[in-house]
Amino acid sequence: MTSFNRVGTVGRYCQPSIVTRRCLTTNIIVVGKRNGGEEWISDGYGEYEKRLRPLMNIQTTFLKTDEDLIRAAQQAKGTVIALDEKGKQHTSPEFTEMLYNSYTDGGSTVNFIIGGFAGLPPEIRSKYPLISLSKLTWTHTMARLLLIEQIYRATEIRKGSSYHKE
Amino acid sequence: MTSFNRVGTVGRYCQPSIVTRRCLTTNIIVVGKRNGGEEWISDGYGEYEKRLRPLMNIQTTFLKTDEDLIRAAQQAKGTVIALDEKGKQHTSPEFTEMLYNSYTDGGSTVNFIIGGFAGLPPEIRSKYPLISLSKLTWTHTMARLLLIEQIYRATEIRKGSSYHKE
Repeated sequence: MTSFNRVGTVGRYCQPSIVTRRCLTTNIIVVGKRNGGEEWISDGYGEYEKRLRPLMNIQTTFLKTDEDLIRAAQQAKGTVIALDEKGKQHTSPEFTEMLYNSYTDGGSTVNFIIGGFAGLPPEIRSKYPLISLSKLTWTHTMARLLLIEQIYRATEIRKGSSYHKE
Repeated sequence: MTSFNRVGTVGRYCQPSIVTRRCLTTNIIVVGKRNGGEEWISDGYGEYEKRLRPLMNIQTTFLKTDEDLIRAAQQAKGTVIALDEKGKQHTSPEFTEMLYNSYTDGGSTVNFIIGGFAGLPPEIRSKYPLISLSKLTWTHTMARLLLIEQIYRATEIRKGSSYHKE
């Protein structure tokens, strides 16, 4: 069970890093448009952002080009993890462990990088640890929905709630 | 490239089985409620049903109990495939091949079985081929959304459209 403390600049409750005691921060950095893809995908994504907001700083950045993505990854503070079909697969409990270790390693911050429609540029693929959500291919808008659901699931697994049943 | 013929009792275009020339039929048989889960999941599911309807007979059956599910699987005509985390994983092109082979083996009909919130009953797990969408866990309502997206993707891969890019 994780305790929740009132920390961070905005004075709200959040799930603090066990090392820095700072609020966890998750940046999801994608090539695409906020309202790209189907409306139901945006609705689902928004729902998980809303559920995660009381627990951590969660921010999604929408970039136009691969060059912007490479620059954002280089400038990111904290751990950088990229999504790629050929990346390492995890079960949800393994993903949870990997995620929380990455918050610790990254001084409470993790950055997820999701490529556009043509996938990740090689400059990202060769430089950062790669994780895969599935051997199956999804649209890139669906990939970010699947990712945010797993981040939310990880917080629930950490809390020991009933959201995650095996 | 697959040709589309005007076949089937309703006289509309559909994608016929190469063996029987009958319209392909896909039954998705789940434990749960039609409107269970989040609204955006139902919206997404409905969107893929709408896209698949011109291509095949697609029907989703919502059952109350594991016993109903076991009975439905036993009574199903055609190939039966169940979704299970421990099942075989496919890439999307492999899934497409497996799916179209299953239509052929099943006389143009494939039945997908999805368990409820407690997973598949052992009577199903031990009897039918199992496929997995991912090592990660999803809610069962999300699992059916992911499945129907992959069925739609399979038809697009078969057509050689741009929906599926690798």
